[in-house]
Amino acid sequence: MAVGPGTLPEFYPVAGIKLGIASAGIKKPGRKDVVVFELAPESRVAGIFTRNQFCAAPVVVSRRHLAESAPRYLLINTGNANAGTGDRGLADALQCCQALAEKAGVNAAEVLPFSTGVIGEPLPVDKIVSAIPEALAAAREDRWAEAASGIMTTDTRPKGASVRIDIGGYPVTISGISKGAGMIRPNMATMLGFIGTDVRVAPDVLQALASELGEKSFNRITIDGDTSTNDACMLMASGQYGGPELTADSPHLPKLKEALWQVYLELAHAIVRDGEGATKFVTIEVSGAFSQQEALDVAYTVAHSPLVKTALFASDPNWGRILAAVGRAGVADLNLNTLEIYLGDVCLVRNGGRAEDYSEARGQAVMDRDEITIAIDLKRGAVNETVWTCDFSHDYVTINADYRS
Amino acid sequence: MAVGPGTLPEFYPVAGIKLGIASAGIKKPGRKDVVVFELAPESRVAGIFTRNQFCAAPVVVSRRHLAESAPRYLLINTGNANAGTGDRGLADALQCCQALAEKAGVNAAEVLPFSTGVIGEPLPVDKIVSAIPEALAAAREDRWAEAASGIMTTDTRPKGASVRIDIGGYPVTISGISKGAGMIRPNMATMLGFIGTDVRVAPDVLQALASELGEKSFNRITIDGDTSTNDACMLMASGQYGGPELTADSPHLPKLKEALWQVYLELAHAIVRDGEGATKFVTIEVSGAFSQQEALDVAYTVAHSPLVKTALFASDPNWGRILAAVGRAGVADLNLNTLEIYLGDVCLVRNGGRAEDYSEARGQAVMDRDEITIAIDLKRGAVNETVWTCDFSHDYVTINADYRS
Repeated sequence: MAVGPGTLPEFYPVAGIKLGIASAGIKKPGRKDVVVFELAPESRVAGIFTRNQFCAAPVVVSRRHLAESAPRYLLINTGNANAGTGDRGLADALQCCQALAEKAGVNAAEVLPFSTGVIGEPLPVDKIVSAIPEALAAAREDRWAEAASGIMTTDTRPKGASVRIDIGGYPVTISGISKGAGMIRPNMATMLGFIGTDVRVAPDVLQALASELGEKSFNRITIDGDTSTNDACMLMASGQYGGPELTADSPHLPKLKEALWQVYLELAHAIVRDGEGATKFVTIEVSGAFSQQEALDVAYTVAHSPLVKTALFASDPNWGRILAAVGRAGVADLNLNTLEIYLGDVCLVRNGGRAEDYSEARGQAVMDRDEITIAIDLKRGAVNETVWTCDFSHDYVTINADYRS
Repeated sequence: MAVGPGTLPEFYPVAGIKLGIASAGIKKPGRKDVVVFELAPESRVAGIFTRNQFCAAPVVVSRRHLAESAPRYLLINTGNANAGTGDRGLADALQCCQALAEKAGVNAAEVLPFSTGVIGEPLPVDKIVSAIPEALAAAREDRWAEAASGIMTTDTRPKGASVRIDIGGYPVTISGISKGAGMIRPNMATMLGFIGTDVRVAPDVLQALASELGEKSFNRITIDGDTSTNDACMLMASGQYGGPELTADSPHLPKLKEALWQVYLELAHAIVRDGEGATKFVTIEVSGAFSQQEALDVAYTVAHSPLVKTALFASDPNWGRILAAVGRAGVADLNLNTLEIYLGDVCLVRNGGRAEDYSEARGQAVMDRDEITIAIDLKRGAVNETVWTCDFSHDYVTINADYRS
């Protein structure tokens, strides 16, 4: 299941960023399971990685290479996460980078590896290495759609976004792809996101954009609260557009940020819409908090509550479950008598209990929709936060209980 | 579904503690839904209550009455939680106490109210008040089994424990009942526990026992991580056994504590075994932690992971899910290379990856059992903690999605 139409956009090619797809037969013969990004010289890359303490070998290597060199290649495989694989996993990831580097005539440190798939099994290095020439030979700027399919694991559909804007009179393109149907895809770990643009951006500004936009989009979605060992989201800027470098004080930066934000959000939302077993796309807005931590604690507690999620699946306007989740979010001295909770435009809770004008029929009308907003105003401060999640259905259990069978 | 046989024990009556059961017809005509505990004068009561910020009206009133007076009566109803009901809820709870107090010739503050059931609907005070005379008239010391059924909501079976020990040559009886099949039972909120003994214990010692034993038993079980608005667990001591008062330095205190611990643990475990949709009873032991917080963070992250819980349901020794949950538990600087994870007596993770001697067949043999222990040794410090949980099945979704239909 998935929420909404979910068709891929028409991708604009990004000057200086080529994509090659090949088949290594990691899990299934003939499946396109290796994707290579080839970046023009002078390109800059920034990114964010999983916060799971046990990050996978490719995450360790990518972080290290990113600190050492300007990346020229990204090498992505599905079907095997190379996670929980110890020292051998690190050596395997490096060996793949080395093989690509030799073929392409760059240093191994200029290659960033990404893996997604089964945790705890050795990476099939030989298969991946043998697919690299095909991927390199196939690299073109107009293959975003194929790459979107190439990085999928059990996603039910490919995910992408693409926009064109004008920065100071120069056209700028941003295209991106993502994969994932849970914060973790159990044996098939991971959420990955790759966003490319031809704009030229100062390195510190690029990393600031990658951090802030990733934080507010990919780090605000949750399917099941399980953080993958392999999560990564990379922002690539080839610098091949016609204009000057954007720095921290560039008047055009807000416009770029706005366009990037649109792509980040679309890609992150696409993951929620394709959440395991999802039948609802749910926005949880917390306002009036004292602090960001407090706002996020409330939002995630509601978003992760199995009782709220099963009520959403049942289209049941079961406001007591939302109230109870807010109450156990660990926020001290919450005042039930002043906070308000809305389902869509219908007030559920006001003055310490069910809102006087609430009726089951009005709540039901909102719950019957595919896309639902739960808004919680804590009436304590001025901080707002939004997270996105999906419901919890029979199919979630089926998918995760039957996965290896 | 439920795990294990779950038959009620033979209850030993507790001198000085009578139980009366009556039918108020709160949700179903004829259902025994009101239970009254009548305590002999000089009895002492201690307890712990929910940490949900939005605790229900009866919790507010019970806490207040417990601080003001020595309780003589506990009044429990099922079918309505009197939660999320604002000022009216408080007045309703008080009115029920008042009605019982008048019939019994005590003060309203000597009555503790407890409610469990639908959140957010007004308490049917008239129905409860009209059932009180029947409950009082029926009160006898040998009705623990009926009371165990009388406090059920959607529990699939009544829960109880009863032991007899000898304290300094005097026989002491401890009997207890509990209800609940989730930390919260959505519209039918709550876990409740009532333990009675005839021993005489100093008030501060009784509260210390209630706090410590409740913390290590009822506060260490989790079905779905959702904390009810109505949870309460009361320890009642009538003082009618033949011996002297036990104080903090009594040599017999450890023996009493051990016996109470047995009853607390049995009642708490009975709730997990009857967890919504449960097919497995799971013990999660974390050892080698620096701090209690760290041990509990790891234990609860594993216990609440939907991916671990669905793997347990599928009897799938999916160790990567356990490893990923430990890694995202928020413990800084965890060392994957030294920690060890066991499933029963089978080592899953050692030296940074899958244990060398692990085999799928050995993992499967443990997973096929009804009762499973996951042991995580962090190898950082000397603190251990244990929590108990159940798996996550299709029936959990069915129960919680179809609840109001």
